[in-house]
Amino acid sequence: MSDAPMTTVPVDEQVPPVFVLVRPQMGENIGGAARAMLNFGLERLRVVDPRDGWPSPKAVAMASGAGRLLETAGPYGDVQAAIGDCDYVFATTARGRELTKPVMTPEAAMARARGMIAAGKKVGFMFGPERAGLENEDLVHANAIVTVPVNPDFPSLNLAQCVLLLGYEWRRQAGEVAPEEMVFNRTDFASRVEVEKLGDHFEEKLTAAGFFHPAEKVPGMKLSIRNMWARLGLTKSEVATFHGMLRQIARHLGGPDRG
Amino acid sequence: MSDAPMTTVPVDEQVPPVFVLVRPQMGENIGGAARAMLNFGLERLRVVDPRDGWPSPKAVAMASGAGRLLETAGPYGDVQAAIGDCDYVFATTARGRELTKPVMTPEAAMARARGMIAAGKKVGFMFGPERAGLENEDLVHANAIVTVPVNPDFPSLNLAQCVLLLGYEWRRQAGEVAPEEMVFNRTDFASRVEVEKLGDHFEEKLTAAGFFHPAEKVPGMKLSIRNMWARLGLTKSEVATFHGMLRQIARHLGGPDRG
Repeated sequence: MSDAPMTTVPVDEQVPPVFVLVRPQMGENIGGAARAMLNFGLERLRVVDPRDGWPSPKAVAMASGAGRLLETAGPYGDVQAAIGDCDYVFATTARGRELTKPVMTPEAAMARARGMIAAGKKVGFMFGPERAGLENEDLVHANAIVTVPVNPDFPSLNLAQCVLLLGYEWRRQAGEVAPEEMVFNRTDFASRVEVEKLGDHFEEKLTAAGFFHPAEKVPGMKLSIRNMWARLGLTKSEVATFHGMLRQIARHLGGPDRG
Repeated sequence: MSDAPMTTVPVDEQVPPVFVLVRPQMGENIGGAARAMLNFGLERLRVVDPRDGWPSPKAVAMASGAGRLLETAGPYGDVQAAIGDCDYVFATTARGRELTKPVMTPEAAMARARGMIAAGKKVGFMFGPERAGLENEDLVHANAIVTVPVNPDFPSLNLAQCVLLLGYEWRRQAGEVAPEEMVFNRTDFASRVEVEKLGDHFEEKLTAAGFFHPAEKVPGMKLSIRNMWARLGLTKSEVATFHGMLRQIARHLGGPDRG
């Protein structure tokens, strides 16, 4: 524990991570990476020495709505230039076992990145060229390796997919979206009183219909049905529908309808 | 709390989730979805009423190493047939606000799916056709909606990307990979004794070189340097390299080398 409080930079002054594509080969993949970033609200893209030159018409075409990310992406002549302003750099690679370095999951890496960014640091993620991936000469510039935990028997992930997963992990940890939210279509949960009254209505009609027997099992049967109504999480409109169904059936069968 | 313990099915008897592609349009996307599933160790794919018929040569070509997933994918004539054996069904859609239903993040959905699967239940995830997504007629069959928390200003995610993210989330929660692992290239962390001796060596040479002044600051300087050695997490080979560098510099400068 430190005596000084941890520096926390206000959210609107925090600098989101920069994603650096190192020697990307196909313009389509650069454009796909830009789209994948913007899907998760990331906009800081940098490109190092793209094989087919820059600007890349194929990247622009593929990026479509995310084209503005390409306009500020460089290109940069080498990795050092592209990550020069970063305080902490991750390198995404499935290999990276030839250098002494921590290897992290996307989850752990983004947790660290978020912590650093909250403390005012600038964080970069490097992504390698499509075929070969990052070279050891690139990896030495990174503080840590990020490896997506793919199926070892089938580890195919392309450049844009890797960017997509890291972008997802960034946004997932933002926790801006409630894990579960009940959506109502012009209704709301029924109140407990409404649920009780529905239970009463069913019990009354079922009693009249001779549903509850044998006598020794009736208390348990009633309890089970009451429990079901409570558990179901019915809406007001569904409760109304059940009342209506029950009344109509009773009417149709000619019984006395007092519901 | 229940009196009975929660049923937990042994891991090797648990049935992983089935991913159901509903009326997919392009074979390439079916193949891409199969690859994305296998990337994260999921193999149970089902296809409902694919637009361009079945088997799909384009799906097979795109699936490449994941082709065996297509062989057991159906096709199924309708959604009900494809999810008929499932105990709990999620529908992935960005919309789904027209029906009263819980809307969950992939994280929350996979947590629920894992819990159900551990209890011996069968779980399905439905994915809609490329352009229109799932219809309300499909969504009514689902217990809950899953929505990927994309940037609302740029929510473009294709079918295979959506499958990829759900597959990633499934595997992430398996927790089979250590969040962070230190990888060593033919070395190991230096022991604390080795780090202490390196600190001694530096202090000795720096003292001989007249580095430590003014006197009142010396204790603080020494403390800072000791702290640095401890914090760096040096390996045995790095410690040896530092000793060697220091000896060579001392030798080159003509000083007495006792290291």
